[in-house]
Amino acid sequence: MCGHHVIESVRRRMIDRRSLFTGGAALAGAAAAASFAAPSAAASTSGGTLIDLTHPLSEDFPTYGGDPGFAKEKVLDFAADGLNLYNLTINEHTGTHMDAPIHFSADGQTVDEIPVANLMAPLVKIDIAARAADDPDTTLTPDDINAWISANGDLPERCCVALYSGWGAHTTTDKFRNADADGVMHFPGFHKEATDMLLENSSAIGIAVDTLSLDPGPSTDFAVHYGWLPTNRWGLECVAGLGDLPASGATLIVGAPKNVGGTGGPTRVFALT
Amino acid sequence: MCGHHVIESVRRRMIDRRSLFTGGAALAGAAAAASFAAPSAAASTSGGTLIDLTHPLSEDFPTYGGDPGFAKEKVLDFAADGLNLYNLTINEHTGTHMDAPIHFSADGQTVDEIPVANLMAPLVKIDIAARAADDPDTTLTPDDINAWISANGDLPERCCVALYSGWGAHTTTDKFRNADADGVMHFPGFHKEATDMLLENSSAIGIAVDTLSLDPGPSTDFAVHYGWLPTNRWGLECVAGLGDLPASGATLIVGAPKNVGGTGGPTRVFALT
Repeated sequence: MCGHHVIESVRRRMIDRRSLFTGGAALAGAAAAASFAAPSAAASTSGGTLIDLTHPLSEDFPTYGGDPGFAKEKVLDFAADGLNLYNLTINEHTGTHMDAPIHFSADGQTVDEIPVANLMAPLVKIDIAARAADDPDTTLTPDDINAWISANGDLPERCCVALYSGWGAHTTTDKFRNADADGVMHFPGFHKEATDMLLENSSAIGIAVDTLSLDPGPSTDFAVHYGWLPTNRWGLECVAGLGDLPASGATLIVGAPKNVGGTGGPTRVFALT
Repeated sequence: MCGHHVIESVRRRMIDRRSLFTGGAALAGAAAAASFAAPSAAASTSGGTLIDLTHPLSEDFPTYGGDPGFAKEKVLDFAADGLNLYNLTINEHTGTHMDAPIHFSADGQTVDEIPVANLMAPLVKIDIAARAADDPDTTLTPDDINAWISANGDLPERCCVALYSGWGAHTTTDKFRNADADGVMHFPGFHKEATDMLLENSSAIGIAVDTLSLDPGPSTDFAVHYGWLPTNRWGLECVAGLGDLPASGATLIVGAPKNVGGTGGPTRVFALT
């Protein structure tokens, strides 16, 4: 309801103001848009190349619970009001999003409390896509971590370990949730033995998946969530675009929301290569 | 309302599942949190130092319209439900946030359509804080841009020009809106002659302010919004932390939301130095 008050206030203000400049909005609206359509896949500057790892968020993006987690209401419209503006309703754990430590703990960091030092991390990409294509219930295990280390060297300090299963290709179909007749979902996730190994033998600060949950789809105990998040490490779910990244060498930049007390939220995730 | 359905679905699912693992949540909640409290101001890796330019977002963050633009409802609680989760209601133009081109145009880019190439930009910081302390209605003019160029060289290609007025220090007081007895606000913004100069003589892709509006507080015609945004360039409002940045040399990384059709939204903004 507060949204309506905001909007009403803005609307009243706009109506008052528009009467003063008689047509400026229409003129501005007709201005030709300059062409700033740079390549959409990545941005290059002297700082490196920025790659987007974020799915577009809309009402129909699949959710863990199955019901929509995002809605928008248009409250100001350019033709009628001189500007466009929406009010949003968002379940924090929707779309490409952050699981902050407090999501599955009594006293872990809220999303605004995560130090900025923990929002940039060397990205370790572990590819289990071939196995996932054959078995949606497959998990990322200590063997996968050891295989990555054999191929790429030690895990970098304060890294994020990302599970790439290829599941991001399924966001527009039922395959993303892949629920069976009993409603049990089937998609890959981390095995608890893998995250326990990271807790014991690495300084990893985050994990990421391209599926709906850090735990595998059929999980009933959320062992990875309960083992990992209470240690003030974070998780990212529904990360996009991992397939195009190298196994090693990229840097993850996590544009998490900064809502006070938040348990996570839709997050703009980038890789810098 | 969709949020309630989502939450009810998750709640039912959690209750079903928690009965299966009898106390795991309590055990996990008691686990000691490892110390990952790195310095909160910035993160350093081989990729550079990441600096947070984002204000914490809460119900009481001041808004242009004056009413709250953010609300949260706790729908799952760790003690009762085994996890914490909120549903959020957000006016897109609240907190540190993006103005996408469509916000003040009929057919400009929506926030999800902004190319990732336009979400990283060399940061040009123009400091008018001393003037703003004496005159809250001061604006950033072509003279200020020329002074920056004289001191720092040509504007970088595809840069973001940020107005630093020192106004970020006032977010917790009425000074941030600084409304007079007639409700007219008084805070600095861009002068339209400055953004017209950028449109004509630079390849700047964005502008940023540490106040509530790209236009100065008393504006009734929103000349900067209507001149700048319809060209498919973006704006950032309520940016934090500019005071600590150099006038030249930092790179802005804009963690804008990727809501389909969105006119902007709360944004995690970083500088990479």
